[in-house]
Amino acid sequence: MAITKSNILLVGGGGVGTIGAFNLERGGLADVTVVLRSNFDKVKSDGFDIISSDHGVVKGWRPSRIVKAIPNSDEEKFDHIVCTTKNIPDAPPTVVDILSPAVTPGHTVIVLVQNGLNIQKPFFEAFPNNVVLSGVSMIGSIELPPGVITHRDPDVLQIGPFRNPNLAKDAQDEAARKSIEIYSAAGKAECTSAADVPYSRWRKLVYNACLNSTCAITGMDTGRLRVAGAPINALVRPAMEEIRLAANACGVPLPDDIADTMRSIMEPISDYFAPSMLVDVRRGNLMEYENIVGEPLRAGTKQGVDMPTLRTLYGLLQAIQWKLKEAKGMVEVP
Amino acid sequence: MAITKSNILLVGGGGVGTIGAFNLERGGLADVTVVLRSNFDKVKSDGFDIISSDHGVVKGWRPSRIVKAIPNSDEEKFDHIVCTTKNIPDAPPTVVDILSPAVTPGHTVIVLVQNGLNIQKPFFEAFPNNVVLSGVSMIGSIELPPGVITHRDPDVLQIGPFRNPNLAKDAQDEAARKSIEIYSAAGKAECTSAADVPYSRWRKLVYNACLNSTCAITGMDTGRLRVAGAPINALVRPAMEEIRLAANACGVPLPDDIADTMRSIMEPISDYFAPSMLVDVRRGNLMEYENIVGEPLRAGTKQGVDMPTLRTLYGLLQAIQWKLKEAKGMVEVP
Repeated sequence: MAITKSNILLVGGGGVGTIGAFNLERGGLADVTVVLRSNFDKVKSDGFDIISSDHGVVKGWRPSRIVKAIPNSDEEKFDHIVCTTKNIPDAPPTVVDILSPAVTPGHTVIVLVQNGLNIQKPFFEAFPNNVVLSGVSMIGSIELPPGVITHRDPDVLQIGPFRNPNLAKDAQDEAARKSIEIYSAAGKAECTSAADVPYSRWRKLVYNACLNSTCAITGMDTGRLRVAGAPINALVRPAMEEIRLAANACGVPLPDDIADTMRSIMEPISDYFAPSMLVDVRRGNLMEYENIVGEPLRAGTKQGVDMPTLRTLYGLLQAIQWKLKEAKGMVEVP
Repeated sequence: MAITKSNILLVGGGGVGTIGAFNLERGGLADVTVVLRSNFDKVKSDGFDIISSDHGVVKGWRPSRIVKAIPNSDEEKFDHIVCTTKNIPDAPPTVVDILSPAVTPGHTVIVLVQNGLNIQKPFFEAFPNNVVLSGVSMIGSIELPPGVITHRDPDVLQIGPFRNPNLAKDAQDEAARKSIEIYSAAGKAECTSAADVPYSRWRKLVYNACLNSTCAITGMDTGRLRVAGAPINALVRPAMEEIRLAANACGVPLPDDIADTMRSIMEPISDYFAPSMLVDVRRGNLMEYENIVGEPLRAGTKQGVDMPTLRTLYGLLQAIQWKLKEAKGMVEVP
């Protein structure tokens, strides 16, 4: 039986996206078009150099096809669009603005490998009849300099549907199953089913909304925060408890001891680890604080949960984001 | 009638202290000994160069006497010790450690021209029979480089007693009155009586605990915070309200609209103003966060006031202080 390959568009060819594209093509079940921006010329001439814990050393690798701009769905029909960009709704164009031209309504499966809560909502509004999948990635992979990918931690990816009330449950589950099959075909990544997407996203927020944000605000890695001691108890723990209460109020019960669990998870693996928003601040990049802190804060507050610690962290992140935008010339001081 | 001059020791010969020393000597009612540290040699050879909105341009001014170390009360009796150093109890030696050798028990009046709450307490414990005065200074004066003082804003100083239950009220009032007389003698400074020290200190905290701390944490001046907009409502206002409730619970009623008053005070005068803790962070100096944020937080919490915004700001400041200490080699990462 001839294999029918899926036609996949991958947007966000950085550390995560490039390993994703390589893994997809290696599996043999997908043709991958990668959208590149700043590194297009470099990759076109030299390909990617990859050092990967899953795939070994690969010099000069080129995806089947690279493009500079998002293709138009009138010209090409994509079965999947995998998005691994940052998600920063407070700095348009938004992710839905970027991907929309390539989406075939009612057909293309949109896979958002991104942090935070409610990232599917703008897609549900724009494409009410498309399946949107959640990808929660644990990969540790960076691109530095352009075209050079260093991938250290194993590629662990959980995929599951953001439940779209307009579509049959089975169709959404089948889309997730197929995505997992395609991504697993190379036998390298640990790609599993996320049975309960809201649960896994809220669970990750216990870490991300509280510790990631505190690191970004203070400019300190997780190890230093732990050594400094008091801040963990003064605010990271209360913030984690607020996230738990917000999740519960939103119908996503997290275990009572989730804060302890998250802290013990963090102990061995994250010595002097710089979480994503801290890395962004240090590089002068914008932070994904709206989906990581703003959305859970709004969701919990709407349900009547008092979240003063998160509200304070959110306000500080807003200020710091403004400062990052000022440095980029995106806002101006009167 | 011959004038009996007061023998004054001034500790902290920076921007505030040097103008204080100059103003005291110019008034003719005091002999001033100034304790200098890093700038001792420079001032000994060249004196201070002063550009002052109150006193004009003064080249090569030397106080009557400069010393490198705190004198001992066995050798010399000081009528007043005026302290204009930073007050950082989390980085010993503390202010009481520093001043103690020069204090004559039961005689020396200790004048603390410093920010924050409860700074008198260690002195009440160490010297239960000495008057301790509060100095709240509004002066804008800096020393940069060593020996060069630029004094822009008028020297406004409020003096009043920290009420010591061991001493007669009249004796404390008289000590304050005399200090004001001595400091006012040059006819340049606006030195007035602070009738209610707890009130004026809590009132200043509405600004300092909330806005000063937010600027220090975000690395943004007051103007930028105001332009960024949302953070003011998200956390500065709630923090100010928590300070008001804490003050009320501690028996120091502040007006209901104090947050509005403080914000309107700040509007015209503080365009792109960097408050003290932000200046410290930028220079890599330790912040006075314990007396400015920690003490009101502890005082309010002890009275049962819920202060989640201040608690969060305090935890973040603790972390940032730790980072500042790490950079100075005062703490180490294991």
